[in-house]
Amino acid sequence: MTADAAPAPIFVRSDFMVFGICAVAVGLAAVTRYTGVSSVLAFVVAGAAVAALASLVGRSVEQLGDRFGAGATGVLQGALGNLPELFIGFFALKAGLVSVVRSAIIGSILSNILLVLGLSFVAGGLRHGTQRFNSERARTTMVLMVLATGALVLPSLAAYVHTPAEPHEKSLSIFVAVILLVVFALSLPASLKRNASAAGDVHMEPPRWPVWVAVGLLAVASGCAALVSDWFVYALEPAIDALGISQAFAGLVIVAIAGNAIENVIGIKLAYKNQADYALSVIINSPLQIALVLAPALVLLSLFTATTLTLVFAPMLIMAVAVTVIAVAFIVFDGESTWLEGATLVALYAIIASVFWWG
Amino acid sequence: MTADAAPAPIFVRSDFMVFGICAVAVGLAAVTRYTGVSSVLAFVVAGAAVAALASLVGRSVEQLGDRFGAGATGVLQGALGNLPELFIGFFALKAGLVSVVRSAIIGSILSNILLVLGLSFVAGGLRHGTQRFNSERARTTMVLMVLATGALVLPSLAAYVHTPAEPHEKSLSIFVAVILLVVFALSLPASLKRNASAAGDVHMEPPRWPVWVAVGLLAVASGCAALVSDWFVYALEPAIDALGISQAFAGLVIVAIAGNAIENVIGIKLAYKNQADYALSVIINSPLQIALVLAPALVLLSLFTATTLTLVFAPMLIMAVAVTVIAVAFIVFDGESTWLEGATLVALYAIIASVFWWG
Amino acid sequence: MTADAAPAPIFVRSDFMVFGICAVAVGLAAVTRYTGVSSVLAFVVAGAAVAALASLVGRSVEQLGDRFGAGATGVLQGALGNLPELFIGFFALKAGLVSVVRSAIIGSILSNILLVLGLSFVAGGLRHGTQRFNSERARTTMVLMVLATGALVLPSLAAYVHTPAEPHEKSLSIFVAVILLVVFALSLPASLKRNASAAGDVHMEPPRWPVWVAVGLLAVASGCAALVSDWFVYALEPAIDALGISQAFAGLVIVAIAGNAIENVIGIKLAYKNQADYALSVIINSPLQIALVLAPALVLLSLFTATTLTLVFAPMLIMAVAVTVIAVAFIVFDGESTWLEGATLVALYAIIASVFWWG
Repeated sequence: MTADAAPAPIFVRSDFMVFGICAVAVGLAAVTRYTGVSSVLAFVVAGAAVAALASLVGRSVEQLGDRFGAGATGVLQGALGNLPELFIGFFALKAGLVSVVRSAIIGSILSNILLVLGLSFVAGGLRHGTQRFNSERARTTMVLMVLATGALVLPSLAAYVHTPAEPHEKSLSIFVAVILLVVFALSLPASLKRNASAAGDVHMEPPRWPVWVAVGLLAVASGCAALVSDWFVYALEPAIDALGISQAFAGLVIVAIAGNAIENVIGIKLAYKNQADYALSVIINSPLQIALVLAPALVLLSLFTATTLTLVFAPMLIMAVAVTVIAVAFIVFDGESTWLEGATLVALYAIIASVFWWG
Repeated sequence: MTADAAPAPIFVRSDFMVFGICAVAVGLAAVTRYTGVSSVLAFVVAGAAVAALASLVGRSVEQLGDRFGAGATGVLQGALGNLPELFIGFFALKAGLVSVVRSAIIGSILSNILLVLGLSFVAGGLRHGTQRFNSERARTTMVLMVLATGALVLPSLAAYVHTPAEPHEKSLSIFVAVILLVVFALSLPASLKRNASAAGDVHMEPPRWPVWVAVGLLAVASGCAALVSDWFVYALEPAIDALGISQAFAGLVIVAIAGNAIENVIGIKLAYKNQADYALSVIINSPLQIALVLAPALVLLSLFTATTLTLVFAPMLIMAVAVTVIAVAFIVFDGESTWLEGATLVALYAIIASVFWWG
Repeated sequence: MTADAAPAPIFVRSDFMVFGICAVAVGLAAVTRYTGVSSVLAFVVAGAAVAALASLVGRSVEQLGDRFGAGATGVLQGALGNLPELFIGFFALKAGLVSVVRSAIIGSILSNILLVLGLSFVAGGLRHGTQRFNSERARTTMVLMVLATGALVLPSLAAYVHTPAEPHEKSLSIFVAVILLVVFALSLPASLKRNASAAGDVHMEPPRWPVWVAVGLLAVASGCAALVSDWFVYALEPAIDALGISQAFAGLVIVAIAGNAIENVIGIKLAYKNQADYALSVIINSPLQIALVLAPALVLLSLFTATTLTLVFAPMLIMAVAVTVIAVAFIVFDGESTWLEGATLVALYAIIASVFWWG
């Protein structure tokens, strides 16, 4: 490098754009939070701000690059991707909106493997015809998803059809939550190794930000996400009332889609670029993390709030997730997708959402 | 072609046989309908006449050959194959026999993928040993079948376990019916293309009938099928009473088997000839059409009758179709069949039928 | 062979060890049965004696070698492997412990395909990494398992959701039991042939015992097993009371594990030796026999006792077996296993067991 070569800039144009959007969105969210504007507007703005901050969190993690090892970064990325949902869930629990939280947990799973997977099949299939994804990785993730879903629904089944277990639903939920977190912890070594070997294909450009900038922005973005999540939840209940929708629908559809906005766009974009295998991995890994980490974490966190969150979901939520996971498992095992399958997945999502439109 | 060569005959011996059988069957059905004979006899004769007319419909479509394009003919064949069931369903709705119609819809699915698939496995397996069917087509059809079944059962699940949706079961059923028909419409382009490319293997001989004869006979046969379906339904209720069986059993077993008689024989014959792949396609395509077309069409048609048909099936029908579709999906994904699997499928059918023997 | 060559010994050291353990265990069980010791101790000793006798039964069958044909021996081995469970079930029915028997039937299925399969995945996976099992045989067995489970749960579904069938649960159970036994009988020819062809790999050493010794010891061991099973059941109820556990938990966990002890150890050992395919076959063949033989045999045997055993299981047992069989079917169809999947299967078992801890 010669003396007159300009140093590579730390921030590029798209960085500044994200910073700007975040600043504006958080600012607007603060204004709508503390002035007497319509709760629906406040709710929408706060939702947008959460999504913008989620994108900044993702970018900061990316800029950490493989400085902690590519594997660790991959795991961190997965874990932090669910951070906004965790914040929203925690504040919703504090606000006593336990029905919203329960349907948001199941809704996050459904929106990933019905809506997002369906849209990615449509986007990929219309452009590239039948797409094939024969990787062992997708099938292995799906098997874990089936097992985790099984564990997740057992406390509900026990509460509804096994009378003697009913009074113990709290203990049972805590037990299942701990087991799910242990399974997640056990899965980390394999994830670390797997991400490390896959790193070459995915992270192309070297990080531009110095470590302290990346870590600093990560901390700031996460802190803001926590703050804005609180405002989001604050506006949630009046917005629900103003819109005349049910808590279940708000959780299942609106909170679930807002909380997963960023991952969703990534998955669909990958399918559109015909990276069917990678798209599928990203998309079905997210609901797996919801089942293995988010849901149990919220159960355990709820012990510190006035509201108790058990893993006893409304029966229709259980039915919806059972039908969905079985259907998607067959699609993953089929090893190929068409846009028609994608359209049918989206149709299933629409039907399930419409059921919860009423209550 | 020289002047003294006799022109190829339009009708061959088997044509005349079918015409004769249809004429006799329709005549007998008319007699039993309008004279005071036993309702059971009238019912059996009308059922046989419906089956004979279904076979004539099939033959007429075949004779259209690929004059509308091989793809279009394939689709037409599939659609018209369910015509007798549609007529019977419509008249049964007009007669207020809503329980018969509901169990006939599920029964048509079950009789195809348990009884007919089972018998075709037995017929093929005993003669040819383990049969393999690795085509993508069967797996793709099965995936759609799983998705369509999911959509079909959701309104029932909502009505039974999601109290707030219960009063809206009619709106929900119409919504699901429209979505299923849209999925079917979206699937047509692919079917047209697929049938066109597969046409070489299947349609061997060129059509003998001129277009106007084929279309004319198609119209006559369909009209007669409509008429005789009405008689069939007219005799149905007194026959049920006379035999002392339940409406559910009559729909699930008797109406379902009568309505699908022709397709059933074809599927079993193909398996016997060791065309396992093609047999499987024919057999699992029929229940897919029932889920995507027949059931939603009857829901929408019922809006024009005094009886309202919703997609809320008796819980045991839902259970039976869920167990069956999951089991058959694994068989299709296994990619091979034995006569023992076939026998077990038939056994499952017998168990389900016996459950509905009581009510 | 020259005159001074010592003849090969009939019994080797390990034979004598098994004889000794059996004698001591049966003797201790007799003492605890007829003296006033703690019922829990009597129960544990009798359970150990049953397991020891089961091991002697297995060894005797092995020593029959292929003298009745390798195929017949394989089938005999499978059938006699469930003998202790059959005795325990029969005596428990005579003692009126119908709830224990029902949960022991489902518990035997669950302990095989969750606990034992899980432990074998862990043992094999930790030592050998991802294990592959692509044999058609495992998939075919699993398909039969799915079908048999479907048949097994239908009477319960009918009893719970189809009111008109409820008063007929006994007839329905007998019908299903007969059908399952017929399916088992139909499966025998294929098993005989399959075992014959697989025999080369498995039975290495020629039998040491003369036929009359093997048959005699088989008879003695079976007789003792019957006797000790009676003592086991005799101690069961007071032991349950003393330990303060529910009948359902005792059946699902304790009786199920005691009755399957021997097969379980074999399956895990095979996986540890990286014979993943063979281990899987052994492990999933056992629950298939429970569904096809043990459960129906107990239903029919119960006709000769004061207690009627129907195939109407507690709803939570049905849910547990449905979740489990679907999840394991996907694992078998995936064709590979990791220790993490194994750990998750064990976790699912722990969750289900904990549900039944309460009633």
